Amino acid sequence: MAELRREPVSRMWVVVTNDHPKGPEDYLSFKPPFGRREGEEEPCPFCPGNEMMTPQEILSLKREGGGWSVRVFPNKFPFFHIEGSFDRRPEGMYDVMEAIGAHEILVEAPEHHQNLATMEPKQIEKILLAYKARLIDLGKDRRFQQFLILKNYPGIFNRHPHSHILAMPVIPQRIDEEISGTLDYYQRKERCIFCDVLKEEISMKKRVILETVHFLIFSPFASRYPFETWIVPKVHCPDFHKITEDQVADLSSGIQSLFRCFFELLADPPYSLTLHTSPVQNRFHRPEYHWHIETRLRIGLREGFEWGTGFFVNPTPPEDAANFLRGVM
Amino acid sequence: MAELRREPVSRMWVVVTNDHPKGPEDYLSFKPPFGRREGEEEPCPFCPGNEMMTPQEILSLKREGGGWSVRVFPNKFPFFHIEGSFDRRPEGMYDVMEAIGAHEILVEAPEHHQNLATMEPKQIEKILLAYKARLIDLGKDRRFQQFLILKNYPGIFNRHPHSHILAMPVIPQRIDEEISGTLDYYQRKERCIFCDVLKEEISMKKRVILETVHFLIFSPFASRYPFETWIVPKVHCPDFHKITEDQVADLSSGIQSLFRCFFELLADPPYSLTLHTSPVQNRFHRPEYHWHIETRLRIGLREGFEWGTGFFVNPTPPEDAANFLRGVM
Repeated sequence: MAELRREPVSRMWVVVTNDHPKGPEDYLSFKPPFGRREGEEEPCPFCPGNEMMTPQEILSLKREGGGWSVRVFPNKFPFFHIEGSFDRRPEGMYDVMEAIGAHEILVEAPEHHQNLATMEPKQIEKILLAYKARLIDLGKDRRFQQFLILKNYPGIFNRHPHSHILAMPVIPQRIDEEISGTLDYYQRKERCIFCDVLKEEISMKKRVILETVHFLIFSPFASRYPFETWIVPKVHCPDFHKITEDQVADLSSGIQSLFRCFFELLADPPYSLTLHTSPVQNRFHRPEYHWHIETRLRIGLREGFEWGTGFFVNPTPPEDAANFLRGVM
Repeated sequence: MAELRREPVSRMWVVVTNDHPKGPEDYLSFKPPFGRREGEEEPCPFCPGNEMMTPQEILSLKREGGGWSVRVFPNKFPFFHIEGSFDRRPEGMYDVMEAIGAHEILVEAPEHHQNLATMEPKQIEKILLAYKARLIDLGKDRRFQQFLILKNYPGIFNRHPHSHILAMPVIPQRIDEEISGTLDYYQRKERCIFCDVLKEEISMKKRVILETVHFLIFSPFASRYPFETWIVPKVHCPDFHKITEDQVADLSSGIQSLFRCFFELLADPPYSLTLHTSPVQNRFHRPEYHWHIETRLRIGLREGFEWGTGFFVNPTPPEDAANFLRGVM
C-alpha cells in the first residue's frame, strides 16, 4: 500500500510506497525487467496471448478481424490504491493519509514495438476513446478529485506502448498551480488564459507547429524543455472527457503528425506526454480551466538544476523548436 | 545571452538561452565533452596548470605547501549574466526580461578525481568558506534577490569536482514555496517550521541519520526521492552567509560522513546537493526562513511521473533510508 505524506514546508503531497520498500540492494541491482534492450527473454505481459499475466481487464476495444486493439487493467504496482478509506491522521507534527485512488494501465496496441509516430491515426483514436471512457467511469467515484493521463516512451519497465490513467484524491501541485493561474487571470480579465494564449500564438505564428480544425499544436513561449509542445483545443472546454468524435479524429491525426516530426527530427527520441483536465466533482470542478496535452522530449541534460533551483533552463528557444518541427511537418 | 520568460499560466520564470541555441543536431550528437569516461583526451580546464582555460579568477584559497585549494571564476556559459539591465518588457501578452544575475563556478579541489565522500573535512571547510565569501560579496549587488548553490556529482560536462554559485534577479519557485510555507506557519504559530521539524525529528529519532553539535542530518518525513537528506542548523538562522567558524568545521565533518555513507551504501552513487538561504536585500529578506542543505541521489527511475503530475512517488520510506544510512555511519 502507499500513503500520502504532506511535506510540511512546501505543503506538497508525496506518495511514499510501503508495500515493497526499496533498499540499497534494489538500486544497486536495478535493471529494467522488460524491453528497452533487444533480445529480452522475459515474456511481455502486455502482448496478446499473455493477458493472464495482467490483473483483471477493466475495458478492451475490439479490433476488426479479431482480438483487441487497446486494453485497460489496474496497475499491478499502483501508486494509488482503490480499496480502503483515507484515514486522514497526524503523525507527530505531520499530516498523512492513505493514497486512495486508481492507477490503471492502458495498453495502446497489441504490437510490442509501436510508437505514436508509427501508429495509424485510427489506432490513436481508439486510445483517446478508451481514455475518455475510463475517465467517465472513474468520475462516478466521489472520492477522486483529479484525473491525469501520463505516457512515457519508451516505458521504463516495459517498452510495449502503454499509458497510465490516474485518479487522485488530491489535486497535484502542478495542476493546482495551473488552476490558480487560470482563476487569477479570469478574475482580472474575465477570459480564459489558454484561449488568449491560442489567439496570441495563432496571430504570432512563429511558435505554431501545426494548426488543425480543432487543435493548436505549438511550442509554448516559456518552454521549460527543448521541444516542449502543447496541444490545446481551440474551443474552450475544461474537461477532456467531453471531447467529441470529430475532435477525437482530428486530435489523433495531429498527435500522429507531431510525433512523426519528433521521430524524424530527433531520431526516435524518448518522450513523456501528459493530459491535464479540470478537477472533477462539483465542488472542485473549474469551468475556467482548459484541458490540454503537454509533451516533453527526454533529451539534453539538466539534471540537478531544476531540482535545486525550481528554475528551468532551456537552451532551445521555442521559436527555433517550432521552426525545426514545421520544417519536417 | 539569456532571457527570463514567464510562463503565463503557472507564472513560473524560465531561463531561455539564446547565445548558442541548440538545434536537433546538438541533441543527436551530444556527448559530454569532459570526464565521466576514463581515457578522455581533452585537457580539463579545472585542473591545476590549466587556469588560463577558465575566465578570470574571482577568488582562490591557497593550499599550504603552495598552489590553490579552491578557485572561483565566472561560468563560461552562464545561465544568468552580470552585464546589462533587466529591460522588463511585454512580448505580445507575455512577460520577458534579461536574465541578469551571476553564475560562478567553484572548483572544489585541485584533484580531478575527488568527491565529498573522499575529501578531507578540512577541504570541505574551504569550500564552505569560499561559498560564504562569495555570497557576502555578491550580496553587495542590489539587483540580486536570491542566492543558490548547486552541485552535481558527477558534473555533467566535467567530472572535476565543482559547484555552481548563482545570484538570481527573481526568487525561484521552489524557494518561493518554502518561504510562503514558512510565513504561513509563522503566522499561525509564531514559530519557525524548520525549528519545529528539528525538535520533532530529534524526539522521534527514526529518521535521524546523524546529529552533530550544530546540525541535524535526517531523512525528511515526506522525502520526494529515495535517500533524500536534509542538513539543517539546529539554531535558527535565515542566512547561510552568517555561518560561524565552529559551524563550518562541524558541518564539514557532517557532510563528509553523510557522503561517505552514500558512497559505501550505494556504490558511489550520482547525487545533487543544493543550499537554500533566505532572499537577500532588506525588502526581500525573510527572518522567518531557516537556511539548509538538501541532497538527492540520482538513483531509481521515475522520469515522467513527477513532471506529468507534480506528484513525487518514493518507493523508499525515509525511516528505512535513515536506518540504512545509520547502519554504515
